[in-house]
Amino acid sequence: MPAYALDKTSLTPLYQQLYQHLREDIESGILKVGARLPSRRRLANDLSVSPATVEAAITQLSVEGYVSPKPRSGYYVNAIETMPQTDSAKIAATGKRTIPANENRSFKKKPRFDLTSNDISNESFPFSQWTRTLRSVMAEEPEELIIGSGDPCGQPVLRNALADFLYDTRGMEVNPDCVVVASGSQVLYNLCVQLLGHQMTIAIEDPGYLRLHSIYRANGVETVPVPLGKNGLSRQGLEECGASLVHVMPSHQFPTGRVMPVNERYELLAWANEDDGRYILEDDYDSELRLQGRPVPTLKTIDALGRAIYTNTFTRSFAPGFRIAYMVLPEQLMNLYRRKLGFYSCTVSNMTQLALARFIESGKMTRHIAKVKTNSRKNRDTFIKVLRKSDLCNNIEFAGTDAGLHFMLHLDVELDESEIVARAEEAGIRIRPLRDYSMLASKNSGGDFERGIDHWFPISLSSLTETKAEEAAQALAHCLSMSGSFS
Amino acid sequence: MPAYALDKTSLTPLYQQLYQHLREDIESGILKVGARLPSRRRLANDLSVSPATVEAAITQLSVEGYVSPKPRSGYYVNAIETMPQTDSAKIAATGKRTIPANENRSFKKKPRFDLTSNDISNESFPFSQWTRTLRSVMAEEPEELIIGSGDPCGQPVLRNALADFLYDTRGMEVNPDCVVVASGSQVLYNLCVQLLGHQMTIAIEDPGYLRLHSIYRANGVETVPVPLGKNGLSRQGLEECGASLVHVMPSHQFPTGRVMPVNERYELLAWANEDDGRYILEDDYDSELRLQGRPVPTLKTIDALGRAIYTNTFTRSFAPGFRIAYMVLPEQLMNLYRRKLGFYSCTVSNMTQLALARFIESGKMTRHIAKVKTNSRKNRDTFIKVLRKSDLCNNIEFAGTDAGLHFMLHLDVELDESEIVARAEEAGIRIRPLRDYSMLASKNSGGDFERGIDHWFPISLSSLTETKAEEAAQALAHCLSMSGSFS
Repeated sequence: MPAYALDKTSLTPLYQQLYQHLREDIESGILKVGARLPSRRRLANDLSVSPATVEAAITQLSVEGYVSPKPRSGYYVNAIETMPQTDSAKIAATGKRTIPANENRSFKKKPRFDLTSNDISNESFPFSQWTRTLRSVMAEEPEELIIGSGDPCGQPVLRNALADFLYDTRGMEVNPDCVVVASGSQVLYNLCVQLLGHQMTIAIEDPGYLRLHSIYRANGVETVPVPLGKNGLSRQGLEECGASLVHVMPSHQFPTGRVMPVNERYELLAWANEDDGRYILEDDYDSELRLQGRPVPTLKTIDALGRAIYTNTFTRSFAPGFRIAYMVLPEQLMNLYRRKLGFYSCTVSNMTQLALARFIESGKMTRHIAKVKTNSRKNRDTFIKVLRKSDLCNNIEFAGTDAGLHFMLHLDVELDESEIVARAEEAGIRIRPLRDYSMLASKNSGGDFERGIDHWFPISLSSLTETKAEEAAQALAHCLSMSGSFS
Repeated sequence: MPAYALDKTSLTPLYQQLYQHLREDIESGILKVGARLPSRRRLANDLSVSPATVEAAITQLSVEGYVSPKPRSGYYVNAIETMPQTDSAKIAATGKRTIPANENRSFKKKPRFDLTSNDISNESFPFSQWTRTLRSVMAEEPEELIIGSGDPCGQPVLRNALADFLYDTRGMEVNPDCVVVASGSQVLYNLCVQLLGHQMTIAIEDPGYLRLHSIYRANGVETVPVPLGKNGLSRQGLEECGASLVHVMPSHQFPTGRVMPVNERYELLAWANEDDGRYILEDDYDSELRLQGRPVPTLKTIDALGRAIYTNTFTRSFAPGFRIAYMVLPEQLMNLYRRKLGFYSCTVSNMTQLALARFIESGKMTRHIAKVKTNSRKNRDTFIKVLRKSDLCNNIEFAGTDAGLHFMLHLDVELDESEIVARAEEAGIRIRPLRDYSMLASKNSGGDFERGIDHWFPISLSSLTETKAEEAAQALAHCLSMSGSFS
């Protein structure tokens, strides 16, 4: 038995050091299979440690299967199917781990003006009110924060608040018992697939939010882009692709900004009603932020037969960093949800849920949204005014400026779209052409899109202050006004 | 044109009232398809409202597709495919929504002593320290809280903290770049299926955490219970079921409390190494809470070839209400994750992530866990002592009392398991027999389980204080000691 060098000044307990030595000797074969360990007393004497220390080390080895006791005889080394070890398998007994912390890895360089971002500017966020709400929850409902046995669909108090919120902002009458809360829209879409089953095809508007294809396909479901043309979603395309679910954004299509007229909504519901297994996922992601007039009534509101699954998120209207979204299921699907997926825990922390409920019920959310709208309106107006007064004034057109946090800008210049993007990038501006939001554009050159697809750019100013919006417009006009770029 | 009664004292804006009247008349056919709306000026005069009010109402109708403008002519009523309307489709112009808030629906009555719960007692949770941490995050990193463009796998600062935490509590050397944070273990398992593909079979220990079957099956994946016998997971069962993923809890199997010996760990790794597509999901859910000795080294630690996906959660060690779990992927799977699922946003709010990172790095988590262990040890010791001194003293046996927050109790009484559960329930105690955690038990009567399955009950005392643990033991002894129940 080698005399192990145990370090009594180390922070690592002696029993752990001894365990480590013995284990290494077993793994390296120094202590052979079947060999009997020295008695506890002898080890304690030899190493000048207490019998309790030896006991603890051997118990540990025994629990892990390195040694086994034989009654009234002692501990014997077991046969262990050994494996090549990585460095990381050799547990350092003390000190810091040897794999360094991840460096601040170089994410893509952040542009000065990101006109593709959903982030919101610090100015727009009600820090002090939100902090106060959190504090009140922590002070008044501490026990509620920690328990895990809440309703799998979300805290009842939040689901009530969301029903009230939908009534106030969208004129919707929804049953709080049909609301499901989750940590982001992506989680909701995952749940929808699990609810409706994996054997389906999902139709997605094109141009549209292409990430939806990634999300649904990651769930093992087929997706098909269906052209969004002058007359809305191609009814023929929808029929032909055999979809049983269509994911649409009727109130404010992303990225085109199109609002689905009411007759198309009824047509879509009629499509869903033709077959029992057909559903519509109504993605209402920023409808509260409509800048002019009342938000358009939802498909869900005119859905008499329970074919529309309504989803919404606080990513745009509150902040993306909070990860809160919700859906309202038709009653028969809600019953199915409870039966089929009721075992899932809600994915949003109790703290966030309870604070959000208070924030809504106290009217703070409504006031916050009004403020976001005011800021958005100012940003939009300033941005448009600057461009209209610039050298580009005869080469620009706007669309969808009323419907929410983004709108469309047409740049009638002689540059290729890629050159526009490159020049903008040099000027510190990130923009993406509408074409990038279409899977069909390359085939089709977007001919069917309402106003053509060429040289249209979705613009989001939500991450900017008004001053920044002004600067962005100036920078954009300047970089595109250089000689030779006008058509 | 009927003279609409507009209420100037109403909180509903006039334009909205007018919009509502016009829309109803269009939907009911009073305003016929193709009819021209009265001019804006005439409507304004007739109704004694401003032209701007009329303009706003008509714009709204136009946006929604009820009417269309013809240049220099006015607005005309469109053809609308009408649908039967539900009451909820008629948007009430004012007042509260008519569907009431959900009542405090009667969840299953909460027992006085829930010995099946994962909740933690208020005593165990460090409210003031956690609140202080949250406040410091809100005060010092407000901008970080709201942005949404963070790393999809979790904030780097948290992933570093988790790597440090795993080093300190588990002796693991992990690369922070291989850590993925999510809002609960269930979300992680969903992601694992999406990562490895839906065309697989997953083997699950039996007895085990049966909810795993529900989770994986909801993802469209097949699951097979594999018996956990005297010699661990049946190797034959594992081979025969054709699984490519096996979900195991080596450090502290739920609910049996079994610790997987090291030779079984190597055997399992050898199984995974036999085929490129095979992986082991190592569910290490409460290993930090091992009550005696150092936690057992993980499979991941001895996994040289990258077959082990390590998962852990703060549900047990912190509190279930926070929804934070994480996994450590082998490097090749991490690369695949970034390529295949890198589009997902992290499902935990920035606030929780940043606060948790601080809580870990400041050493508060380690101290908290030490306290939870002390409490658990006290609860366990008191519970066992009371039962050993009770009339039941000759009819009880304990197993797995060192490994974490639950242990096993054998009740050698003449009552059926269902009678034991019923008597306990009457006495305010919720317990469940081990049999309830097995899909194979009915066929097999659990004969292969290490000590048999009959009359074993997993016991969790985490939701109790020491006094309650004492009372629970007394109540259990009393209700089972009534005449005729001894064997």
